[in-house]
Parts: sequence; C-alpha cells; structure tokens
Amino acid sequence: MGTINGKDFIKRLNELENEIWYDGGKIKGEISEHPAFKGILKAKASLYDLQNDPDLKEEMTFLLPDKEEPIGLSYLQPKTKEDLKRRRKMMEYWARFTHGMMGRSPDYMNTAIMSFASSASLLEGRKNCFPENIQSLYERAIEQDLSFTHTFITPQVNRSQDYLGFSEQPISAKVIDRNEKGIIIKGARLLATQGGLTDEVLVITAPRSFFDPDEAFAFSIPSNTIGLKFICRESFVGGESSFNHPLSSRYEEMDSIVVFDNVLVPWDQVFYYDNVEAAIDFMNLSSFHTFAYHQVVTRQIVKTEFILGVAQLLVKTINVSEYQHIQEKLSEIIIGLETMKALLEKSENDAEIDQWGYMRPSMIPLQVASSIFPRIYPRFSEIIQLIGACGMVSLPTERAFDSEIRAELDQYLQADSWTAEDRVKIFRLAWDLTMSSFGTRQTQYERYFFGDPIRLSSNLYRNYIQDKHVGEIHKFLNLKIK
Amino acid sequence: MGTINGKDFIKRLNELENEIWYDGGKIKGEISEHPAFKGILKAKASLYDLQNDPDLKEEMTFLLPDKEEPIGLSYLQPKTKEDLKRRRKMMEYWARFTHGMMGRSPDYMNTAIMSFASSASLLEGRKNCFPENIQSLYERAIEQDLSFTHTFITPQVNRSQDYLGFSEQPISAKVIDRNEKGIIIKGARLLATQGGLTDEVLVITAPRSFFDPDEAFAFSIPSNTIGLKFICRESFVGGESSFNHPLSSRYEEMDSIVVFDNVLVPWDQVFYYDNVEAAIDFMNLSSFHTFAYHQVVTRQIVKTEFILGVAQLLVKTINVSEYQHIQEKLSEIIIGLETMKALLEKSENDAEIDQWGYMRPSMIPLQVASSIFPRIYPRFSEIIQLIGACGMVSLPTERAFDSEIRAELDQYLQADSWTAEDRVKIFRLAWDLTMSSFGTRQTQYERYFFGDPIRLSSNLYRNYIQDKHVGEIHKFLNLKIK
Amino acid sequence: MGTINGKDFIKRLNELENEIWYDGGKIKGEISEHPAFKGILKAKASLYDLQNDPDLKEEMTFLLPDKEEPIGLSYLQPKTKEDLKRRRKMMEYWARFTHGMMGRSPDYMNTAIMSFASSASLLEGRKNCFPENIQSLYERAIEQDLSFTHTFITPQVNRSQDYLGFSEQPISAKVIDRNEKGIIIKGARLLATQGGLTDEVLVITAPRSFFDPDEAFAFSIPSNTIGLKFICRESFVGGESSFNHPLSSRYEEMDSIVVFDNVLVPWDQVFYYDNVEAAIDFMNLSSFHTFAYHQVVTRQIVKTEFILGVAQLLVKTINVSEYQHIQEKLSEIIIGLETMKALLEKSENDAEIDQWGYMRPSMIPLQVASSIFPRIYPRFSEIIQLIGACGMVSLPTERAFDSEIRAELDQYLQADSWTAEDRVKIFRLAWDLTMSSFGTRQTQYERYFFGDPIRLSSNLYRNYIQDKHVGEIHKFLNLKIK
Amino acid sequence: MGTINGKDFIKRLNELENEIWYDGGKIKGEISEHPAFKGILKAKASLYDLQNDPDLKEEMTFLLPDKEEPIGLSYLQPKTKEDLKRRRKMMEYWARFTHGMMGRSPDYMNTAIMSFASSASLLEGRKNCFPENIQSLYERAIEQDLSFTHTFITPQVNRSQDYLGFSEQPISAKVIDRNEKGIIIKGARLLATQGGLTDEVLVITAPRSFFDPDEAFAFSIPSNTIGLKFICRESFVGGESSFNHPLSSRYEEMDSIVVFDNVLVPWDQVFYYDNVEAAIDFMNLSSFHTFAYHQVVTRQIVKTEFILGVAQLLVKTINVSEYQHIQEKLSEIIIGLETMKALLEKSENDAEIDQWGYMRPSMIPLQVASSIFPRIYPRFSEIIQLIGACGMVSLPTERAFDSEIRAELDQYLQADSWTAEDRVKIFRLAWDLTMSSFGTRQTQYERYFFGDPIRLSSNLYRNYIQDKHVGEIHKFLNLKIK
Repeated sequence: MGTINGKDFIKRLNELENEIWYDGGKIKGEISEHPAFKGILKAKASLYDLQNDPDLKEEMTFLLPDKEEPIGLSYLQPKTKEDLKRRRKMMEYWARFTHGMMGRSPDYMNTAIMSFASSASLLEGRKNCFPENIQSLYERAIEQDLSFTHTFITPQVNRSQDYLGFSEQPISAKVIDRNEKGIIIKGARLLATQGGLTDEVLVITAPRSFFDPDEAFAFSIPSNTIGLKFICRESFVGGESSFNHPLSSRYEEMDSIVVFDNVLVPWDQVFYYDNVEAAIDFMNLSSFHTFAYHQVVTRQIVKTEFILGVAQLLVKTINVSEYQHIQEKLSEIIIGLETMKALLEKSENDAEIDQWGYMRPSMIPLQVASSIFPRIYPRFSEIIQLIGACGMVSLPTERAFDSEIRAELDQYLQADSWTAEDRVKIFRLAWDLTMSSFGTRQTQYERYFFGDPIRLSSNLYRNYIQDKHVGEIHKFLNLKIK
Repeated sequence: MGTINGKDFIKRLNELENEIWYDGGKIKGEISEHPAFKGILKAKASLYDLQNDPDLKEEMTFLLPDKEEPIGLSYLQPKTKEDLKRRRKMMEYWARFTHGMMGRSPDYMNTAIMSFASSASLLEGRKNCFPENIQSLYERAIEQDLSFTHTFITPQVNRSQDYLGFSEQPISAKVIDRNEKGIIIKGARLLATQGGLTDEVLVITAPRSFFDPDEAFAFSIPSNTIGLKFICRESFVGGESSFNHPLSSRYEEMDSIVVFDNVLVPWDQVFYYDNVEAAIDFMNLSSFHTFAYHQVVTRQIVKTEFILGVAQLLVKTINVSEYQHIQEKLSEIIIGLETMKALLEKSENDAEIDQWGYMRPSMIPLQVASSIFPRIYPRFSEIIQLIGACGMVSLPTERAFDSEIRAELDQYLQADSWTAEDRVKIFRLAWDLTMSSFGTRQTQYERYFFGDPIRLSSNLYRNYIQDKHVGEIHKFLNLKIK
Repeated sequence: MGTINGKDFIKRLNELENEIWYDGGKIKGEISEHPAFKGILKAKASLYDLQNDPDLKEEMTFLLPDKEEPIGLSYLQPKTKEDLKRRRKMMEYWARFTHGMMGRSPDYMNTAIMSFASSASLLEGRKNCFPENIQSLYERAIEQDLSFTHTFITPQVNRSQDYLGFSEQPISAKVIDRNEKGIIIKGARLLATQGGLTDEVLVITAPRSFFDPDEAFAFSIPSNTIGLKFICRESFVGGESSFNHPLSSRYEEMDSIVVFDNVLVPWDQVFYYDNVEAAIDFMNLSSFHTFAYHQVVTRQIVKTEFILGVAQLLVKTINVSEYQHIQEKLSEIIIGLETMKALLEKSENDAEIDQWGYMRPSMIPLQVASSIFPRIYPRFSEIIQLIGACGMVSLPTERAFDSEIRAELDQYLQADSWTAEDRVKIFRLAWDLTMSSFGTRQTQYERYFFGDPIRLSSNLYRNYIQDKHVGEIHKFLNLKIK
Repeated sequence: MGTINGKDFIKRLNELENEIWYDGGKIKGEISEHPAFKGILKAKASLYDLQNDPDLKEEMTFLLPDKEEPIGLSYLQPKTKEDLKRRRKMMEYWARFTHGMMGRSPDYMNTAIMSFASSASLLEGRKNCFPENIQSLYERAIEQDLSFTHTFITPQVNRSQDYLGFSEQPISAKVIDRNEKGIIIKGARLLATQGGLTDEVLVITAPRSFFDPDEAFAFSIPSNTIGLKFICRESFVGGESSFNHPLSSRYEEMDSIVVFDNVLVPWDQVFYYDNVEAAIDFMNLSSFHTFAYHQVVTRQIVKTEFILGVAQLLVKTINVSEYQHIQEKLSEIIIGLETMKALLEKSENDAEIDQWGYMRPSMIPLQVASSIFPRIYPRFSEIIQLIGACGMVSLPTERAFDSEIRAELDQYLQADSWTAEDRVKIFRLAWDLTMSSFGTRQTQYERYFFGDPIRLSSNLYRNYIQDKHVGEIHKFLNLKIK
C-alpha cells in the first residue's frame, strides 16, 4: 500500500475506537471531531498529505527494489551520508510545516522503528529475544504507513535514591504472566504523548539502576488492544479560534497515562522479554538513540528558527531594535540556532557505518546539542517574555475586534507599521508560544525530552574520551603514575 | 460609616454597573456572578470581612479621634516606627489570606491614597494644583472604605528611543479640553489590574522623557463615570473547580485597557493638571513610592513563603530531599525569602520622619528588594517546574477522580505518603502557580511591577550615594583631582 | 597587662622564633623584616596600635571589674544587643583600617577564643574534657592580648565519597600517644592563614562523616612549640612598591601547611581529646560558628564597600557611568552590599540569650549572608575586570614614572580628571584587587571561607524550619497524610 | 630565503635593538636573554624550528611556482576548501606546541598579512591608497619569514559616548605631517602584544564613530624605526622555574604601549592614509577579519583541549569524578569544546570564493564562536578554581622539594595515584593557568580579543539575515504591512 494521506490516517484512527479517557469520561464517537483532539489530528493529517503532494513526492518518499509504491522517507535505512542528509531534509520539511511544535510528528516514531529494524541483529540468538518480530513490524509499518507513539517513563511513587519500587500490586507495567498466546502485562506507564491518537503503541523499558526482569521487555501493539487504556490530562487547547490561540488550536498533542489492564501481547509482537541484559544492550548499542537524536535536533532547529522569527517580529513591532540589551537577547537566540545547526551538520559529517552496515550519525555532537537545548529553550521563552513585557498580558480577543469597540482597539493598540489587529495577532502568538498552558508545556517538554538534564551531563562526561587531552598534560609536566 | 464588609463591597460594585467589555460583549447583570470575575470578587470580599472579624478588629482597624467607626488600618498615616510595623502586620494578614497572589488587595490602593494625602502639601500654592481635593478624596475613601485601581502605563505604539508619541488623534490619555465643569480626557491607558472591579479609578501619569503638559495630570473618578470603558483581556480563570485550578479559580484579577471617551473630570476631583513640574515633583518627592514599595515587598514576602511551602511539599511528595541539587534549589528560595525579610525590616528600622511629619520607611532597602524580586520570582517559578519535572504535565482532572477509572488513578498515581488524589492536588497547585496562563501572568506581573528592571537598576545606581566609599579610595591612594 | 601595641606585637613575635619554612629554607632572623612577611606584620601591628589610640580607646576596649587595664573589645562576652553592636563597631573599625582584606585580623581569633570560653560549660563533666583549660586560655589571652591562628582543613589525599582516609603513617594530624605530660600529635593540617605569624595556634577538628576518635581533639599551643613547623606556599607579595602593588605589599597574609612532628601538648592546654561526641557537640552547639560568622560578615561588608569604591572610581576615571550595562553592574554591587548589611542587622535584632547567658546573634541571617558572599564576591571581581577591560593589562610601573619616558606616559595615559600617574594608580589597585596572585587568592579565600558552598546550601536547607509554610499548603489544599 | 629557524629568528631580533622600555629602563643587550622575554622568545623560536623539522616540513610549508625555498604555510592564499583545512592543520600544530597560550604565534600575523595581500585590489585606484605596497610587504614577509605584531586600540582618555577625542597635542597616533619622504606619525597606541619582540609592526586603525581622517591610515614598519618606542607593563613571568610557573615561564608575551615620536613612514610602506572611506571599506570588506577569526578560533579550540586536560587531571588527582556537580562542570567544558569545533568546521564547509578568487571561510559561524568564547573561557577558568578549591592556595615551591622538609611534603601532600611532587606540579599548572597574574591576563585577553563583547553581540544581530524566519511568521499569521 505505501504512503497514506491525511484522510486515510483520520479514517483508520476513527475506526480503531481506542479507549481514551478524558476529563472523567470515555471518548465516544469520532476522535477527529473531539475539541481536544481535532486540531492536532488535522495538523497531523496535513503532514501525511504532504507525502502525496506531487511536487514533494521526490523529497518525501523513496522506492524499495521489491515494492511498487513509494514509501515514506523516514523509513529509509541510511547507508551513505547522502541518505542521512536526505532524511534530514525530509524531517525539516515536516517540521517546518508545523513550526517544530509537533513532538510526535510521524518521522519521529518511523525513525525509531527504522532504527530498531536496523539493529535487530543485536538480539539474534539471545534468550527470549525475537528479532524477527522487529523486522516484521518494520515491514508492516512500511506497508501500511502506520502511526505510533511510545512510552518510556514509569510511575514515580518515590524518586528517592534508595527506593526499589516494590509493591504488592504492580504499579509500573510488568509481565505478570506468560502463556501459549503471549505475555500478559499489568501496570501503568506515564506520559505517552499523542497516546491513543496513533495506530500502535511501542512499549519499551529504559534500563534503571534496579532492573526488574519482569520489566525488561519490548513490543508493539495496536492502540485498541483489549485492556489498553489512555487517561488524558486536561487539554491545553485554548479554544478553536486560531486568532486567539494560534498554536494550541493546532498543535496541542495531549499526553496520557497508559494503563495495561491485563493486556495480552501475542508472541509474534514481542521483541524480547525476561532478559535484562538484552534490554540494556538494545538501548545502549542499537542505533535508536542516535537516529532519534538526529530527528529531534533537526526539529528543534526548525523550532528555534520559528522562535527567532517571532522574537524579531516582536522587536520590530514595538520598534526596539536599537536597544543594546535587545540586541544581546536576539543574538543569544542566533547563537543558539547556529550552534545547533553546526552540531547537527558535524554529526552528519562525522557519521560512520555501524556494525550492521548502516550509516550512523556521530553521537557526541548530538549529545552536546541535546545538553544545550534543554537550557536554551526555556531561556528563549524568557527572552520573548522580556521583549513583550506588559504587552503580553493586555491582549483582547478575536471577538473584541468583531464588536462595537473595534474602533477604540484600532486606535489605541496600533503599532508603527501594523494595524491593531495584526499587532494583537503577533503578541498573541508570542504569548501562546511562551505563556499559555500550551507554551509552558512545550518548555517542559523540551527540557525533559531525553530525560533529566543532570543525567545527560553526567552521561556526556562519562562517554567523552579525554585520554588524549589528559595525555598532553602528562607529557607537558612529565608526570609518572605512582 | 467606616469599614465595609464583603457583602457591602459586592453590593456596591454590582450597583455601579461599570462599562466593562469582555470577549467582545458589554457585561450585563451582576458582575459578581460572571465566571471571569466571581472568583476574585469573592476573594476580595473575604478580605473586607476580615476587617469586621471581632478577633481581628484590633489588628485590622484603627480609630480616628473625631470618628466613632473604626477605619481600615491601611489608611493609617504612620507617625512612629510602631505605626509602620502595625501597618505591616495588617498587610501580612491580608496577604496571607490570599497567599500573596492578589496584587490589587485593598491595602495596596488604600496605601496609595494615604500617601497622597500625606504628601499633598507638596502641591500647596502651585499652579493648577488642588491639594485640597486629595485630602477630600482621602476622607471620602476612609468614610466609605472605597476600593480603587490605578493605571500608569501608556499605550506603546512605538518604544523607540527617538519616538515622541505625536499623533493626530490622542492615543495616550490626555486633556483635550478644559471648561467650567472640569477637564475633558480622551485617549487610553494600558493595563489597569482589576479595572472595572473597584469603586474608583486613580489616574496619574508617570513622568517620561518627553513629557507633554496635556498628560501631566492626576485625579480619581468613580468607575462608572460616563465615557469610561474597561476592555478586558482573555480571562485566565481555568475553570470553576478549585481542585483543577486552585489559584486561578480564586485569584485571577483581570487586567484591562482603560478608555477615556471624552470623560469629564469635575474640578473637585482633579489633583493637578497642566503642570509638568508639579507632576514630576509629586511622583519623585511624595511618599507614594516609599509606602507602595513597603506594601508590595510585604506581599511579595508572603508570596515567597507560599512558594517555599509548595516547593518543599513537592520535594516531600516525590521524596527527593536528599539530592544535593534539590537542596541547592530549595536553599535558593530560602535565601531569597530571608533577604527580602531582612531588607523590609531594615527599611522600617531606618525609617525617618519626612518633611510633613510622617514616618517614612527607608527607600534604599526597598529599592534593593524591588530590584531583586523581579529576578528571583521567575527563578522560583522555574525551580518548581524543575522539581515537578514530567509530573507537571500528566495530571488528570477532578472529574477523572469521580469516574470509573478512579481505582486505576489511585493505584498508579499514589505517592509515598499521599493518596493519588492529594498528590494530584499538590501537583496541580504547583502547575497553576507556575505553568498555567494564570501562573505565567503572575511571573510577568512580578517582573514588571514597578516597571522595567533595567531602569530600576539605573535608578538604584543613580540614587545611591557612594561618596564615602569613593573617598576612602582617594585617601588610600592619595589621589589629587587634576 | 591588657592591650598591646604594634611594637609589642612585633617584638614578641620576633622573639618566638617559630619554625617557618619558606621556599625551601628555614627562616632566620627577624620575621618582621622578611620581604614575604614585613607588609602584613606592619599592617597587623597598626591594628594593635589603634587599641591604644586615645581617641579610640573607648570604642576599641572595655574594662573588666577585676582588672585595671583596658581589654581589647573583641574579647567582650556580649550579654545585651548593645554589646553586640559595640562589638560590631569595633570590628568595622579594624576592618576599615585594612579595607576588609585581612582575614586573620586579631578580632577574628579573639572572637573565637571568646566564644569558646562562653560555651565551655558544654564540656562540663564529660569524659576527656577540660573546660577549665578553655577558661584559662581565655584569661591568658586577655591578659597578654595574644594573637592566634587556627587550622581546620585536613590533607586531602582523596576526596572520593567512599574514601575512609586510613594509611599506615598518619597524614591528617592525630593523637598517636598519651603520657603523663600530655598528648602527642603527629600529622599535618592544611592551610593555616598567617601560620607562624601569631603567638599561638588553636587546633580543633571539624567533624567528618567517618570521625576517627584520634582526631577528635582541641587545644591551643604556642607557635614555637617543639616539633611544630609551618611550611609556606609561594608568597603573593608582588613587590615592595605600594604604587605597583597597593594591596599585596600590605595585606598578603600567607597560608601555610602545619606539620606536627610528634608535638607534645601539655595536659593543661588540652580542651578535649578522644571524645567524638563532645567534639561534635562543641562544634555544633557552642557559639563559635555564630560569633565567627558575625565577625566575618562584618568584615565582608567593609570589603564590599571598598570594592564599590574601586568600581565607582574606575567608572568615573574612564567616564562610562552613562552606559546602561555599567549601571547594571554597579547596581549589582550595591544590591550585594545592602543585602549583606540588612542580614547582619537582622542577625543582631533577632539575637537571643543562649543557655549560658550570652547574647547570641540569630544564625539564619548569618548563614544566608555566608551563602551569598561566596557567590557575589567572585562576581564583583569579574565586574571590576569588565569595567577595566583592556586597561587592566597595560599598566606601567612606578619606576616608569620616574624615568625619561614620564612625559610620554603623562600625555598618553591621562584621564579626563586624573593625571596619568593617578589613573595608573587606580587601575593598579583594581588589578591588584582582582587579577594579581594576591587578588585571585582573595577570591578563593572568600569562596571557601566557611567551606564548600554546596555543603553550605545543604546545611541551610536542612536547618531551615519550613513547617509553617508547608502547613499553610496542607490547609489550603485540605490534604490528609495517608 | 624562505622559512627561518628559531636561531635565525632570535639572531635577527637581537640585532634590531628595538627601543623597549621596561620598568623605567631602556633594555640593553640581547633581548633574548632578558628575564622578562627569554621564555616567550624561546617558545617562539621553537615554533620556527618546527617549520624546518624534516618530518613536518610537508605540513608546515608550501612551495610557490617561482620560488625554490619552501614557504611557511600561514602565508598560503587559499583557493580551495582543501587549502583552508591545510591551513587549519598547520595552525593546530603550532597551537598545540604552545597549548594555545600564545596569542601572537607567527601564524596569526602571517595570516593577517596574507589576507591583506588577498584583498589589496579593494584599494585599486582610490585616493591616497597604495595596494602595491601591501603586495610588496607580502612578498618581503614571505621572502624573509618576517615576524610582526599589530596594534589597534587607541588610548582612552574618556570612553563616554559623547567624547570626540580632541586635544591639542595628539594622544591617539595620527598623521601630523606629510612630506616627500612619507608621512609623519605622532601619538600612541595601546596594547601591542609582543610589541618590540617582532621584526615589524603593522599599524592599522579600526574605524570609530567619529573617524578623524588623520587617523585613517595603515602601514607596516620595522620595529627599530627611529622614534618608535615600546613601553612595557610589569612582567607576569612568575620566575624561571618551570616547576613553579609552568606557563608564565614559557608563554608570557608582554603587552606594550607603542609610542610614535614623530615617526617617518616612507611612502613605499604606506598602504593608505587620509581616506576615511577606504579605511572603513578595508576593515569591513577585506578578508582580514574572516581569516583572523579562522586562526583565532583554531587556537582557542586547542587551548580548550588543554583546559579540559587540566580539569580532568585535577579531578582524577583528588578523585572526585563521581560527584554530580563535578561531572556537570566537566561537561560544560566538553560542550564548549565541541561547540567551537563544530562551528569552525561549519565555517570551512560553508566557505565560498570571494570576489578576488580566494576561498573565504563563512563568517557567521566564526562570529558565533567569537561571541561564545569570551564568555566560556572565564567560566572554564572558574571551573578549574572550583575543582581545585583550597588546594590552589597551599602549594609549596620547587625548592621546598629540594630541602630537608621534602619527606614531610612527600607524606602530607601525596595523592591517590601521584607523588606529592607530581600532585603539586598539577595544581601549580592549574593555578598558573587561572590564578596567577599570567592566568588572569589570559582570561582578560580572551575576553577582549576581538573587542567589546557587547559590541560583538550587536554586530552579530545586525549582520544576521532574519528575513526568511520573519517571513514564515508573516505567512503563518497572514499579516499585512500597514
């Protein structure tokens, strides 16, 4: 079948009738018409449409020797640096279409599935491991252009360093039984972005200090599997008006808690289970992190370009570009943007063929970018608030411009080169980006995308090979180990 | 009449029928029942009730020799350091009752009116100045326990340094005519917090580089004066549930643009007009800033105590108090709190009798506190976000706890020493304080309470007398001026 | 005998002939004439002279009922808040005389001895404790106006968290024997400031995680005790010219390693030994920390005034006071200064009588000040470097002004209101304060005065009672402990 | 003649007998034997030797078609990206040999001369411009492998924004006469690094707001030209022992004030004069900045590697690598290093052929790197101080290890895997790098290498083309310019 379009995506999702709980009720009827989800689903559908746009087909898809239909390029297993750059361009294209605001754009999860398939050999011949199921998932995903979400985070009763996480009834999702049909999962996972809004859910555990074998598993199942429930948080859609809420009305993705109520995962969908060592190896040695970082950094760069555009437009609207402290703030965004771009490019230039024959970007520049972004993104948000100042909290709504008092708004809210209406639009965008519930969730999202920033720093330090630099000092000082 | 209670306040306000525009419509019916205003009005009414609480009367009111009824203590003109401390305790009491979240609590504006009356002599005998009108406002305010808002900020078509602000039709509110009845005002002011929710509006212009005499005025008029319109921004009330939105359901104050549509200000309500020099002197030399800062810093300290409580409760909920970086973050809040407290106390200890016989707090410690708070408050907000981490964006609503899936929430969201419900309450409070539209508006509000932080720094530098310290170096180096 | 003067101090010190090692040689002859020590000893002598200045005697000394001679006020055991303020003024006086640059000014150690005596009862009746020896030290110190240094830090072979510090031969100083004459100490201590430049050395151990009973001791011995050696670091005296090195030529204090080569401490000089619990109690419960912090914060405030003077003079010299970023930098120093002053004052206002009847300043404000200063002092140093910019590294010497090229210097280095010579003096002071080896050692000294800043934060967090603030949230959210 | 070796360099310099004033005296005898200069000259000589090392000749030199002798590669005019990378490798090689500590390594100035020659056509046919003299300087430099310094900064009597810099007698160097032989220069320039230690001085004026035509000139003259004087600051050589002062004993470069005492610059050495527009164009449009930044960023990367080595060695010496805050600090250095490397590489990848046919690196990534480094370098210095803590200020000297007390040092200063001597060596290096007068001058040097960081930010903001990003927002919001 190959690439789907937006309509296919919506139709298939509506038919799944996933069990989604929202504000105390189970969602009934077409999910694509629900106020909390219609915006994001429409935005996502538009991405699928791009794949079928005749002008873009070349850039958004590729052909496999044995298939007639073009396939979404995010499924391409790269073998050359050219492939990597081609992948990046496709991701930029999708990210630009949604201004980098969609964390779970299809390429993110397609990339994950592709990287799994490209590293499946790692599991070959190991106990309780089924690499062939990864390969068949990859083929199924390509064939049907499936959408996915995934979920990593375990519920945190207690984050104390000494806490082992034991409790009578499972809290964190775990294997509670195995039978001839498959494994039975009970428990929960926190925070699946777009949980319930995709065809399937990829479930995989991140290794922890005390790794319970019952939690060492990975699989992918349809979102409408019996016993699978998605419990949503409050929606951050501010309203339907794209004048009032230009971003949240389009890009609010929703996060949900995933509950496994004795879910049966059939054997042919299990990648591995009951094998702590394999679970650790797969997370550490597969190309998953590398390709995921490559996609994320690409999206974050596009988002930063969007932020720079908003900041600069704000500066021009109130005519403050000659202030030195404004110039310094804007230059901070420019520095962040150019730094991210240089690191991404370096990761591609230094890419190397991995043990399974795929071209893998260099990890260190991507890790550096991923250590930088969680710090600069909140600062960018702050910079926009500092430029907008009081103007951010006195913004009338779309309807005010449709009412009797419009003349007054036109007169009193006008800007140098903009009408009052356009000025309010610009400020509302700045507000929605940084100060609405949607905007602050974006900040938190970027802050924690790849986990605790403190742990990211520690990992970077530990992975970085410093022997050469230390060796230089040994030589310079003529030191002798005792 | 003396102090009113909450019911009096609500009744009087409802009867005023101020012209308030909200989301494109003029508000009709009782303002106290409108979803956007009911929470804040109820909270404010409860403050007035405190004045009449028999247990607190002593601390919340004082007696004037010639009046029988007790008067709200915020109207007390302090003559001793004891008076200052008494005022502070009253302000703390009110602030604690609303956790420091209400910027326009009655004591803020009462203090302003009191300081105006205490400095009115400054205007004696000057052209176009009517100090007697200030005194009679003060008496009227005391008599009827009036509520006020004020508005400083002018619309900013253009913030360029070279922009003079001329336009054919007035944009910034100005005197466009004078007749036998009074002065006629046309134009707008930005950002009156609680605009339309008070008995009167105090209008006064902050001196600017290019100060148009037509803008050099001050007066107070009833909020329902003909031609006076309040145009609201979007409401940040998240909803009526205090479980879901513990703060915004109670403390969202609303900010509005104030439009003067040929408003007649009768002569006996004008304090001064057409006198640039008097306008500048009154802002610089009256006790207004000093007493206003004294009230604001008191409230900010109470708010910081609330923040510390939330932060510490969050830390305990997820059991992370042993992490060094958590301890450092909490100690940052403690340092901020204790610093603000020490500065406030110093301003009282160093208070001096001013030229009109009133005990005025020392300004430098208050200026220092006001330079610090706009920097530390946003950091406190960030600290709470950093402690809450992913937990901040996966919070179910009150109704979810009233539904079939409650058992699942109870199991999967429980904390070490809290039920799932209490844990969600705690996190929702942390979220509403720092990440909701209400919370980010609080951040912006504290950032800009007394204006541009960069200007505050410059003022502090310019006002600070350094001769002694520079003189020490002259002596040490034995320097001679050329 | 009572207070000594500078001459007495120098004479007594020269006669001690302490064993001081400097740059590979044992110092011979009068220590007061040695280039590395003459500056600091002269500066210290001048402080002793102040005690005998007829104009200051009142402020610098006090009388004991049973003694005729006036006694240095730093020995006063405070019983009222007035006493505390009197002590502070005396400390300010001494600190101003040396611009806050002398860490081991006599009042620091006198205060320590005074606090020990005021808390000696804590040791009453405990095993291996001799509170009477503390009292007699206090009396001896008063009688002879003795000078002291002390040493806390143990050698750090290894700062790993798991390291227990065992080794065959003692590294850290410990009791290796006890006999009828006293205890025998062997091992080393790091970093005694002014080590060898005082009459006695107070040795006391700071409790550690793994506290060896052999290290749980305290005593004071004459600096010339047999077996006691002081090994100096390189001197940071830049030279004798006070034009070139206005600070290091006067205030370089020297730090030394103290080696105990089987030193006998006679029983009547031992305060306690072999009692881990008493050692911990004495450090935690005695008034030592409180009074020491009170002295240190007083000195740091004076130093900050000096820094503000230098910064402002630099700003005036190159005429940059109108730059907004300069104003912000200066206001940072002002904010730091006023904050420290407010905290110190609060510690005095909140002082309380302790269990032994002495007026003890409140600890929290002092702890806050001590958490702030290690962060702001390095920033102040940076601010001065940023103001001075390139001007800091192109400064000719005193002799250049005495040579043929003086005319050229006069012409090319002149400032707006200063001669070239004065301009160079001002910049050299700024350089010596922040960029010379002396200046950077000052920065490191203030950074670590009371130990690791990270530990200070943790302590502050742990000591701060937050129950009231947390309780408010419990009430607000109506929480119930599970 | 082509490349010289170290001996040639020293011999030629000694023969010049430049007029250098140091500490009030004119230097006599061989400059290469003077304690203040011998270290740096030896280090510089060793760089020249590398050019003649048979193993390196290939990498350090190139051949010109019409010359037999190999030429130093820093003179190569790059025409391909390969040339750029070849240049970078040569610069890395030299930088590594001196750990990035030598600001005026020969390649810096050779690059400047090369870029001047490559852009000389810009001056073709313009008034008072002599591009042919630039070309002949380039040829002379190649032929004789000349060494240079340059000087940009004008004396700053007054940095006020309004100050025009007029005075009766020239302060800033300017043309005071023109005659048949050449132009006569009188006045001064501040801060020529290695002033007097090179064959020639390149003098060129940076355009300023009020640009006096008499200051709009550029030329290169021998350092021993009559009337040319170099006035040195105090030397930061700590001493001859490379144990005690591993860096300053080798790399202290000296900065000097350059005085022009009616210096005649012969016509054939003048590049331009009396042409403000040409002077501005040459600084803005020539490839000087681009190639200079390319060299500087290369050197700064090598220096950062050195810093990372020192930091990591320090961490290992005291065994603190498991502390999270230490890991974070080290990762900060890693992030800085990798960011600089990625930006440098991007500048080469995005290089383009300029209008005169030379391959010019892309400027934006270099500008970004140059905005980052002045901020991170001081932080790196601080990080090393924070790791070293108290250990930084208790370091005995080389002679102490040669004396009787060596056994005590060996015992008490030993580290886990190092002898006391090696431990002290490591700490002394860390101290010399960050806390000695040499180290702090390095910090100031990197902070201001390309001028005021605030101005660098403003330039970056102004040069950065944002139209595309702003345009995206226009489209998204459907804005219309009024």
